[in-house]
Amino acid sequence: MKKLLLLVFCLPLIVSAQNQDSLFIKQISDEIMRNGKAYEWLKQLTKNIGGRLAGSPQFAQAVVWGKKTLETTGADKVYLQECMMPHWIRGGKDVVNIVSVNGKKQLKQLDALALGNSIGTGKKGITTQVIAINNFNELELLKDKIKGKIVFFNYPFNPTYISPGKSYGEAGAYRRGGPSRAAKYGAVAVLTRSLTEATDNHPHTGSTSYNDSFPKIPAAALGLQDADYLYNLCKQSTNVQISFTTNGQFLPDTIGHNVIAEITGTEFPNQYITVGGHLDSWDVNEGAHDDGAGVVHTMEIVRTLKVLGYKPKHSIRFVLFANEENGLRGGNKYAEEAAKNKEEHIFALESDAGGFTPRGFSCTMSDAQLKKLQSWIPLLKPYGTDNITSGGGGADIGPLAKIFKTPLAGLTPDGQRYFDLHHARTDVFENVNKRELHLGAVNMAALIYLIDKYGL
Amino acid sequence: MKKLLLLVFCLPLIVSAQNQDSLFIKQISDEIMRNGKAYEWLKQLTKNIGGRLAGSPQFAQAVVWGKKTLETTGADKVYLQECMMPHWIRGGKDVVNIVSVNGKKQLKQLDALALGNSIGTGKKGITTQVIAINNFNELELLKDKIKGKIVFFNYPFNPTYISPGKSYGEAGAYRRGGPSRAAKYGAVAVLTRSLTEATDNHPHTGSTSYNDSFPKIPAAALGLQDADYLYNLCKQSTNVQISFTTNGQFLPDTIGHNVIAEITGTEFPNQYITVGGHLDSWDVNEGAHDDGAGVVHTMEIVRTLKVLGYKPKHSIRFVLFANEENGLRGGNKYAEEAAKNKEEHIFALESDAGGFTPRGFSCTMSDAQLKKLQSWIPLLKPYGTDNITSGGGGADIGPLAKIFKTPLAGLTPDGQRYFDLHHARTDVFENVNKRELHLGAVNMAALIYLIDKYGL
Repeated sequence: MKKLLLLVFCLPLIVSAQNQDSLFIKQISDEIMRNGKAYEWLKQLTKNIGGRLAGSPQFAQAVVWGKKTLETTGADKVYLQECMMPHWIRGGKDVVNIVSVNGKKQLKQLDALALGNSIGTGKKGITTQVIAINNFNELELLKDKIKGKIVFFNYPFNPTYISPGKSYGEAGAYRRGGPSRAAKYGAVAVLTRSLTEATDNHPHTGSTSYNDSFPKIPAAALGLQDADYLYNLCKQSTNVQISFTTNGQFLPDTIGHNVIAEITGTEFPNQYITVGGHLDSWDVNEGAHDDGAGVVHTMEIVRTLKVLGYKPKHSIRFVLFANEENGLRGGNKYAEEAAKNKEEHIFALESDAGGFTPRGFSCTMSDAQLKKLQSWIPLLKPYGTDNITSGGGGADIGPLAKIFKTPLAGLTPDGQRYFDLHHARTDVFENVNKRELHLGAVNMAALIYLIDKYGL
Repeated sequence: MKKLLLLVFCLPLIVSAQNQDSLFIKQISDEIMRNGKAYEWLKQLTKNIGGRLAGSPQFAQAVVWGKKTLETTGADKVYLQECMMPHWIRGGKDVVNIVSVNGKKQLKQLDALALGNSIGTGKKGITTQVIAINNFNELELLKDKIKGKIVFFNYPFNPTYISPGKSYGEAGAYRRGGPSRAAKYGAVAVLTRSLTEATDNHPHTGSTSYNDSFPKIPAAALGLQDADYLYNLCKQSTNVQISFTTNGQFLPDTIGHNVIAEITGTEFPNQYITVGGHLDSWDVNEGAHDDGAGVVHTMEIVRTLKVLGYKPKHSIRFVLFANEENGLRGGNKYAEEAAKNKEEHIFALESDAGGFTPRGFSCTMSDAQLKKLQSWIPLLKPYGTDNITSGGGGADIGPLAKIFKTPLAGLTPDGQRYFDLHHARTDVFENVNKRELHLGAVNMAALIYLIDKYGL
């Protein structure tokens, strides 16, 4: 009976709180959909600065731009956090040509991009036979035939997975680990099938990672049309020779920066909520979806909360992370500094899956925390969030979870187009849609508001 | 107790039926995502034939192509259903220029497209003052100032609606009814702000509809950049003169065709399920999303059901409707013939909202029927269907509901990009994504399977 009475008296309060939340989230949405600057900012970042690989002059320009632009939002503090960054350079044009088939001269240029962090061949390049391999099992079967050759891993995306991220995780093993797996058996270079289902022929770069137990060998990705062509040629021929020239190298580490804005909490200033995206991108495109979108989502949220006069209980940090793509030094540095300063990090949210229509969030947190987030779906559903699921977050915020067990969430936009342009030349501003981009910021800002208000 | 026993005995059957459904839907999905032809067919339709307005030679080519291609799917019957069609032609280049401001010569070309079904100005065109009007209320206030002038309706999309379809419905009143509303007060022509939020300047055409009580006057749409320019100019000036030349006219009605494929039902051959999209498009683009996507969705479903050896209980008709855009003669004819033949139409599904990632279906049916569809969401959710909502269907299947009270559903893909290119020059093949397109067919085919199996 007591419980019932409590319910009867509290129900109006609960309903009224929900109405308040619903109204404030509508204000967030109206502000972003009507006056949002994310799209305009993305144009500045992509068109005035462009690709911004860690260590590049463009990355340094992006830091200056990010700080200056965040200062216009009225954040309580805007500052740079220094970190060391790897400085890999492509070093020139990547050239991969078929030069002969079964001893007969036959020239065909393939469109290739060296994998990030890979070493180059030297100017003379490598000319030798290529052997097409479907997967690691086949590599083991053919290990005696690989010495001195170029191994071409043609492992495809699985088109039947409805989430292309699953295909990326699976096929990504060949980009990440393929070069060292082949080097173990004496291969002199590696080609990989690009991690995409795109119908065009653009190659997709991205980090590879050497296993120090084996020689480091050059590696490059082929677009799908060239990959299919080369694969079929290899299957029909006994000896396909390729000339392979890449120029990648590491210069000494350089200084980079995370760019951080902060709104100080009114009740719990020492408890932090972090929202971020990464400022660096690959060198071959404008990094519009990856992760210009996450950068401007982050900036849009601070702008909107300030415009609406929102005074958070907790301190909120808006972080443009340095160096996600080939080192994660920015994310690591942010967590290390937080640990050093004995900060308390109660939640972190990243946008690093593109500026497409939002569909929800993927989370790494306790079941109880996940249930709490899921209880807010009715409030977020009008803006696109249908799913809040377990498993995910973001690379840059990962170190926070390691150190503080901070619960993490990542924005999950519609992913069908993402790997068409991810790490390819086509990841440019023109392939971002304004409404889709802005809706991402709406859903993220709403989630931040709910977590700030109700905790986790 | 009896109920409990019944439940205990039936539960395994229910679970097993769900498993069967889930497995068959997975087969549908795997077949379409791996071997689907929708994207390739769309390329043929858009690139080999292109825009295919009712009455045009291209429309006739599309009919031949549709029939021939459907015949390759192994459908039990493929045939044409003749109907009369309106034959509106653009008749030449639409030219709208600012020629003077406050009596001073000042030439600026505006990018304009005559509205579909609108009459032309004649070769000499119209040159007169333009008056910018925000909405119909303002039209009433200014009605005495309109005689002899060109009325420019600048009513914008509301950016805060999360569903752009709602903005389209609202702002669409100006394209549909604006010309006659202005003609009532003596306007000699109408310009409308295009029904879009696109960041480019492409004008968007689409049908207008004259009220026979008032003179028919020429009408054209402006892209958003030009609309903003003209609006601001009008607000800052006392007299902006425009020259306006369009050449639209109706030729005599011509013969057109619905293209129909059929799989005959094994148990209820006289009960029909209809799936369709419309084969016609506007003349200024390739009609890729509108409604090439619906056409190839429809064709993909029959292909897939045949490949999987599915034998439906009910007869399924796959219809490429003639003339949705400016007359609905195909949809009307289909329903009339069905009535004449005393057919029973138990369900109809249309895809006419683009080839974007599917999010669900919008339905016009009884509450009980809607609940039944919603009970299948767990089966469809892995493929993108999160929402099955009330209200919707499709223009071409609408007449079936009028005659037979047939329950209707329309595929509802993500709509954020649709009105960027709807009826504009940008609705071309390149703006369709293969995976997004194919996923639409997966969800539609799965729904058709469930309705065929369980009825409505």
